Amino acid sequence: MTKPTPLSEFRFDPDAEDSYIDSAFVALEIVRLLREGDTDSVAEFLNAQELADVAAYLEEMEIEDALTAMRLLPLHEQAELIGYLRPSSQLVIATRMGRRELAKLMSAMSHDERADLYKQLDEDAQEALLPALSKAEREDLRRLAAYEEWTVGSVMTSDYATLKPGMTAAEALEALRAQALEAETVYTAYIVDDDRHLIGVLDLRDILIARSRQRIAEIMDTEPVFIRAEAEQEEAARMIARYDLIALPVLDREDKLVGIVTADDAMDVAADEVTEDFHKGSTVGPIETSVAEATIMVLYKARIYWLVLLVFGNIFSGAGIAYFEDTIAAHLSLLFFLPLLIASGGNAGTQSATLMVRALATDDVRPSDFGWLLMREALIALALGLTMAVAVAGIGVWRGGPEIAAVVATAMVLIVLFGALIGMSLPFIFARLGRDPAAASGPLVTSLADVLGVLMYFGIASALLDI
Amino acid sequence: MTKPTPLSEFRFDPDAEDSYIDSAFVALEIVRLLREGDTDSVAEFLNAQELADVAAYLEEMEIEDALTAMRLLPLHEQAELIGYLRPSSQLVIATRMGRRELAKLMSAMSHDERADLYKQLDEDAQEALLPALSKAEREDLRRLAAYEEWTVGSVMTSDYATLKPGMTAAEALEALRAQALEAETVYTAYIVDDDRHLIGVLDLRDILIARSRQRIAEIMDTEPVFIRAEAEQEEAARMIARYDLIALPVLDREDKLVGIVTADDAMDVAADEVTEDFHKGSTVGPIETSVAEATIMVLYKARIYWLVLLVFGNIFSGAGIAYFEDTIAAHLSLLFFLPLLIASGGNAGTQSATLMVRALATDDVRPSDFGWLLMREALIALALGLTMAVAVAGIGVWRGGPEIAAVVATAMVLIVLFGALIGMSLPFIFARLGRDPAAASGPLVTSLADVLGVLMYFGIASALLDI
Repeated sequence: MTKPTPLSEFRFDPDAEDSYIDSAFVALEIVRLLREGDTDSVAEFLNAQELADVAAYLEEMEIEDALTAMRLLPLHEQAELIGYLRPSSQLVIATRMGRRELAKLMSAMSHDERADLYKQLDEDAQEALLPALSKAEREDLRRLAAYEEWTVGSVMTSDYATLKPGMTAAEALEALRAQALEAETVYTAYIVDDDRHLIGVLDLRDILIARSRQRIAEIMDTEPVFIRAEAEQEEAARMIARYDLIALPVLDREDKLVGIVTADDAMDVAADEVTEDFHKGSTVGPIETSVAEATIMVLYKARIYWLVLLVFGNIFSGAGIAYFEDTIAAHLSLLFFLPLLIASGGNAGTQSATLMVRALATDDVRPSDFGWLLMREALIALALGLTMAVAVAGIGVWRGGPEIAAVVATAMVLIVLFGALIGMSLPFIFARLGRDPAAASGPLVTSLADVLGVLMYFGIASALLDI
Repeated sequence: MTKPTPLSEFRFDPDAEDSYIDSAFVALEIVRLLREGDTDSVAEFLNAQELADVAAYLEEMEIEDALTAMRLLPLHEQAELIGYLRPSSQLVIATRMGRRELAKLMSAMSHDERADLYKQLDEDAQEALLPALSKAEREDLRRLAAYEEWTVGSVMTSDYATLKPGMTAAEALEALRAQALEAETVYTAYIVDDDRHLIGVLDLRDILIARSRQRIAEIMDTEPVFIRAEAEQEEAARMIARYDLIALPVLDREDKLVGIVTADDAMDVAADEVTEDFHKGSTVGPIETSVAEATIMVLYKARIYWLVLLVFGNIFSGAGIAYFEDTIAAHLSLLFFLPLLIASGGNAGTQSATLMVRALATDDVRPSDFGWLLMREALIALALGLTMAVAVAGIGVWRGGPEIAAVVATAMVLIVLFGALIGMSLPFIFARLGRDPAAASGPLVTSLADVLGVLMYFGIASALLDI
């Protein structure tokens, strides 16, 4: 056995093949030291690490060890650390803590993460926790927790920095200084009137640049972009990306400021949306938890619906084959080319659909571009089909003679052309019908291309071979 | 005809169905006013708009109108605006500008965007431009432009804010104030020694919180995360997301600070990587430009390789069918179920592959989780297969009697089970071989599932029916 590496030598190494430290290995070492009673070494090590990394170590430990390790950090770091843990791990830790310790931790947490954790607690735990919090915290919690899962309200946070329009730049800087410990960000500040109506937004950079006596009302942006608390959270993520914002202000129906969505929370929302699009693209339905944590039942339910639906869709392909049974019986060698031809239509179609789904999602193309994109796709598909026809023609001659080769090559061109056009059109049709273009999935395109492929292949065969 | 809406009434409306203004419509109105000579109205309107929106309007105009509109903004806004335009539009504008005007604009641009634009210019234009720039700008341009396309160096910017370790917090604030106009961000500052070695990082927030006489050296983070200029840019995006950074410092091999990658540039890199993963998932190869701007030839090349490769892969399915020709000839009704069965294996496999590709990309699961994930997948696939077997058994009885139904149902369970296991394993196998798991695409999984499906279906049929 090799001597274990001392903790102090674990260090971020940007030149390593895999630049992240193996969390499980570090976790083992931490637990060993904790059980030996060497808490000083562990405390020193953890305090020098990035909190995202500490969270990764804790994920690998048993709950009692994780709690012991966590308690070696100062409270405000614990409060930040818990936000880096998986929701399920947060819940386990919260459940194991005493009521008083949990209340202290939650008071120090950022308001949005606190509300997310609170929502996870069962009713008894919620009831037990509330009296240990301040009145303002209780109200904040209840308010943030009330928003529905998919809304901007459910990802916003209420610990933003505010300024008054009458302040000078110098006063504003002092005001931000006073809010710097509590606020989620002080790099963008929100100017509100006495009724909390949002009347302007100002970046800290502009305060620094301004002359110290200049009034905030003179330099603030009086027509800031904002979003409603009831809007979809994906919309907030899109706006933050589009306008390169640090944070996006959230207003209620009365134009009162109720929260902000920060850029890093928006990145998480955007990543979740991408995951959803990926899943949709292979007919997997929405999954609330992470894939790693999902139960068998959750995954079964997310997958069975489309699988069964597509089974019935494929009956049409079967019926197509049954319709041409006589042609097939007379030329059994045609069957050799069946998988190859129908798969090619599906593959070309899947490519087109994916290109369009992603281009629509990133605003690279718009629904109104459909016309010229279809023309371009027809030319590309024709080129692809002709190339593939050449590739199969040789095999056709070898397996069934020149006549079969002619049938197969002709069918290939048409199948690839129409497969590609179906795949390219479907996302636009879905968008037009007000549905998510991402639902134009590979399997759906493949099923449609299959039916068309069977009909075209055997249709051409019976026309060319039976006469 | 309805009276055209005056420009002043175009406004961001967060409660509208589609919250973005129709850019093409606004562009038309701007051009109309410009041609009527009413530049004052246009200038007023453009100055009140977000630059991302102004860029969207310019994209809809002819080059001369776009240039005229752009010139109505102050220089530093023009410099920021051009970064919001598509690369091809930037190039058109740069090419149309006089050498002197272009040099002025580029001096005001952020250093990374300036280098990107410079790289797009042809050699003559580059040569013509350089003498109009300052020596420092020339050197900065050459240095940034020298990094290869996929590296961190090619997305980093060199206009970061620096501090000296001996400064007090108050002096640091003054130093950042002086750099606020030029630097890409002042919210994170980099502490370097006289040789530009990075010795610490400090957020502006921490400077605000510190006592004004405290030394920077005492409060800075002395073990900041950083990345090498030669690393892959996706790695920078992952680190920024993992550690919730505003910007990530970039060092050369000698630990000297050479640039930073900002969070918003990291978001763009991450979005490009997601697009690449989407494309890979449907066997579309890398495309350098956007899909909307790609030529027919570029798209043809990105797609033909895998399409032809899969044609040859599907020959195995054809050979499988040919092998069972006698069984098929004796029971032609089996063909009815062929598309349905092999498609089901492909669909279940595509679902599994997609779930794993995305979970691996987001670190939701790790390669070491393969064992228990495979067990879980087997149970899920069994449940899916049994459900689908029930769904087809009825059709089996109707189309071919109880014997055919038994064959079809048995085949369905096995095909879905093995299809799903193939789809789930492939991303892990790719990862193990050091390739991108995203290459475990739907079409590849479908092709593998097809071969297996044909063999299992007719294998079972000939075993059960021929005896």
